[in-house]
Amino acid sequence: MWKPDRQSKEPIYVQIADHLERRISYGEFPPGSLLPSERKLSEQLSVNRSTVILAFAELRSMGIIESRTGSGTRVSKTIWGATPKHTPNWSRYAEGGSFLPNLPFMRRIREALTQQPSLIDFASGELSADLAPIDEITMLMSEHKYTSYLGYDNPQGYIPLRQALVSYLAKYRGIQTTESSILITSGSQQSLYLITQCLLSPGDAVAIEDPSYCYSLPMFQSAGLRLFRLPVDRHGVRPEDVRSLYKKHRIKMVFMNPNFQNPTGTVFEAERRKQLLDVASELGLPIVEDDPFSLTAYEGEPPSPIKSMDSIGSVLYIGSFSKIAASGLRIGWMVAPRTIVERLADARQQMDFGLSVIPQQVAAQFLKSSYFEPHLDRLRMQLKFKQDLLIESLRRELPDHVQFTVPQGGLHLWCKLVPEVHDGKLLEEAIRRGVVFVPGSVYGSDSGYVRFTYARAKADEIGPGIAKFAEALRELIGESNGPR
Amino acid sequence: MWKPDRQSKEPIYVQIADHLERRISYGEFPPGSLLPSERKLSEQLSVNRSTVILAFAELRSMGIIESRTGSGTRVSKTIWGATPKHTPNWSRYAEGGSFLPNLPFMRRIREALTQQPSLIDFASGELSADLAPIDEITMLMSEHKYTSYLGYDNPQGYIPLRQALVSYLAKYRGIQTTESSILITSGSQQSLYLITQCLLSPGDAVAIEDPSYCYSLPMFQSAGLRLFRLPVDRHGVRPEDVRSLYKKHRIKMVFMNPNFQNPTGTVFEAERRKQLLDVASELGLPIVEDDPFSLTAYEGEPPSPIKSMDSIGSVLYIGSFSKIAASGLRIGWMVAPRTIVERLADARQQMDFGLSVIPQQVAAQFLKSSYFEPHLDRLRMQLKFKQDLLIESLRRELPDHVQFTVPQGGLHLWCKLVPEVHDGKLLEEAIRRGVVFVPGSVYGSDSGYVRFTYARAKADEIGPGIAKFAEALRELIGESNGPR
Ligand SMILES: Cc1ncc(COP(=O)(O)O)c(C=O)c1O
Ligand SMILES: Cc1ncc(COP(=O)(O)O)c(C=O)c1O
Repeated sequence: MWKPDRQSKEPIYVQIADHLERRISYGEFPPGSLLPSERKLSEQLSVNRSTVILAFAELRSMGIIESRTGSGTRVSKTIWGATPKHTPNWSRYAEGGSFLPNLPFMRRIREALTQQPSLIDFASGELSADLAPIDEITMLMSEHKYTSYLGYDNPQGYIPLRQALVSYLAKYRGIQTTESSILITSGSQQSLYLITQCLLSPGDAVAIEDPSYCYSLPMFQSAGLRLFRLPVDRHGVRPEDVRSLYKKHRIKMVFMNPNFQNPTGTVFEAERRKQLLDVASELGLPIVEDDPFSLTAYEGEPPSPIKSMDSIGSVLYIGSFSKIAASGLRIGWMVAPRTIVERLADARQQMDFGLSVIPQQVAAQFLKSSYFEPHLDRLRMQLKFKQDLLIESLRRELPDHVQFTVPQGGLHLWCKLVPEVHDGKLLEEAIRRGVVFVPGSVYGSDSGYVRFTYARAKADEIGPGIAKFAEALRELIGESNGPR
Repeated sequence: MWKPDRQSKEPIYVQIADHLERRISYGEFPPGSLLPSERKLSEQLSVNRSTVILAFAELRSMGIIESRTGSGTRVSKTIWGATPKHTPNWSRYAEGGSFLPNLPFMRRIREALTQQPSLIDFASGELSADLAPIDEITMLMSEHKYTSYLGYDNPQGYIPLRQALVSYLAKYRGIQTTESSILITSGSQQSLYLITQCLLSPGDAVAIEDPSYCYSLPMFQSAGLRLFRLPVDRHGVRPEDVRSLYKKHRIKMVFMNPNFQNPTGTVFEAERRKQLLDVASELGLPIVEDDPFSLTAYEGEPPSPIKSMDSIGSVLYIGSFSKIAASGLRIGWMVAPRTIVERLADARQQMDFGLSVIPQQVAAQFLKSSYFEPHLDRLRMQLKFKQDLLIESLRRELPDHVQFTVPQGGLHLWCKLVPEVHDGKLLEEAIRRGVVFVPGSVYGSDSGYVRFTYARAKADEIGPGIAKFAEALRELIGESNGPR
């Protein structure tokens, strides 16, 4: 990102005017389009607002921009000469299409993280750099020469990776499968996207957990699906609820995240799994099992997937490297009947022509390497350690204001706030103090909850982060912030 | 892919029966689903059909499969016991969704290439392994340690790659832009996908060239767009045709591939470009410029993009590494006004969470490295060499049956066949003889054309490939195949 050069002899406001003029002439801001506000620009460029005002005045005097009170500053329409020329109405195009934008809270969080890189991040559901196997991956990449052919790959995914996943799934997840039943996707996200776009039609009813990661994805609404809720209690959803939703709404599919569910951390109980599979086979109903967290189980055996008990093929199983290795690899996979795999591979070929071969090679090497197991052990230990830190800090800072169940795996802690406060106000107060989290309403649930991710922040940020959060909360509930 | 072990003491048919039973029990072929035909399996496993018949008989006797005349062999529905259990009707799900499958010819070509890796490939629109900068990329990957953070990346794309592209676009394409106006996508394909999904709505009319790569993409129909044709003559499309389509159908966008167009190789003429931009600005009409081939120009300066003359911001510009470096990197980019970039980055975050960081790092390093220019020089020379080989072979083998204009860049030769023959029959005859190409009708044009890609085959395959093609053609037009 460009910043003015404070060493230069040229005044800062002139530098800014020149810079904006260049961006306008490049077409980044076409004639008639809105420029960022003075406040926003001054934040972005780390200058006083008055400097931006001077720069705008300069551009206005050159006829390059026009300001009208209340409607902001726009690039002049006649900038390129007298004949009226029409730039396409880009904002109308940007509002077109059937794809809904991200939820406002999610956009706000992303924006805050981009503008304030120093924010303590309890919002991004991913591992911190020190938890990801970056050294291992760097070593593997220098040990193996990536000289293979770099042409369009099979849209179903790189075969050696699918082969490595056959062993991985058998060994770690109790799932017997073959490489022809595996589709490699850009994380589990793309598996979910392909299912909603290619296997379901607008108007179809589907069931999702409540609360659920899925509610944070306007993708489900973009596909025109009607969403019905399966309340999650301490043991997960109730299979009977699935049957009654089917009777009432002819649901076409059930989306589940049964192991250390995002956001609640719940593990779907074993007896209920059997009942769910019975209901599914009675109704011929497909279950999508999204299983990114299992291998983080802090102690004992990771919970088995529903898929490992699925004797008749009711389950589409989705896995990912994002939560156990690195989300930036963008490697996920789906295990599905062959007709489904072929249909989705065909569709995704038209969307993106498949994934780059290189990260797929890296993932295959990593799975087969001797680094994989020790990495998992270290990951589990450190996640547990960070979870302990978070819980301690919450108990210390807000003993009377948070309630939670401690999950045995995963990256998140789901907290009920007492008393309930306004989601949006709490988020803004927290951001102002330098910490960010996800308001629970994003997950479709009742207000009054927050999701803290403890995996992403550095260990020594967790205490200070919760202290800031506590300040924000106390501000809203009107308690003094003085020493307790 | 599994094959029977011919060394083993166990009879081949028993091995096959066991193998199929295992795949059935893994859920790859759920109860009630159709198995591949005897013919297909015997090809896949390289065994006699009678061996497959024996294996099927074995499975039938165990009650695992059922055959009914005329409707193939299916997995038995009661395989898992007496109680009736219902596997989801997966084939109905696979037919659902609004996303159309690939064109039958394209599926047939992909299938043939998978099953017969020895086919001489004039169909895949990409570089052969020896034209791709594989050594350079391997060297760059071992020179640079990829120790950076592997978290979810900015959905707009890795910043150092966007920065490298700002210089690349200024230096090689005469396009002035900034990193905030660039969106990195999975090849140009994903740029096109995002535009059709997020900026246009079902029912919108758009104009595309005829013939055009776009016709090979059911993606346009999947998005519910109404397609109107702009005939391509020796100098590209006629700007007046754009105006009259706008008057008649209120087209919302124009898709163009102006430099060494796929499939015709045409370069859109300079005077017409100016006229097109005038029409666009008069109508406020956006132009999508898909520009993957320019840097392959065999001699002289590559043609400038329309975008470089676009003073008011009518053009969405798309570029790619696929045709000048390696399609398996899956790196493409779009230059667009900021509102559009932001909208598309937001949407793609929900589809796939952005690209893997690793290939983006590789691409950025490669662009900045001293390998880039010499690679381009070598690529141009070798493409021209392969084009010469193809043209020589066609003139030698089919002097009276092919007509073409020799393009000055790109990967493809567009040939008119005299006399016209049946597209599908010609393709099958060619595949039977060991060579594959793309029938012209795939590109929406009149029948009687074929597209030969000369970049993908090895140099010493081009002559023999065309000889096989000539045999296939002569077979269909009823000429003797004897010595001439
Ligand atoms: C339950 C669940 N499913 C899917 C995803 C998508 O992750 P990825 O695409 O990185 O695998 C996430 C990420 O937060 C998740 O929590
Ligand atoms: C004109 C044109 N546009 C776009 C593409 C898509 O290529 P990629 O996504 O690999 O950049 C192709 C590939 O054949 C093409 O020929």
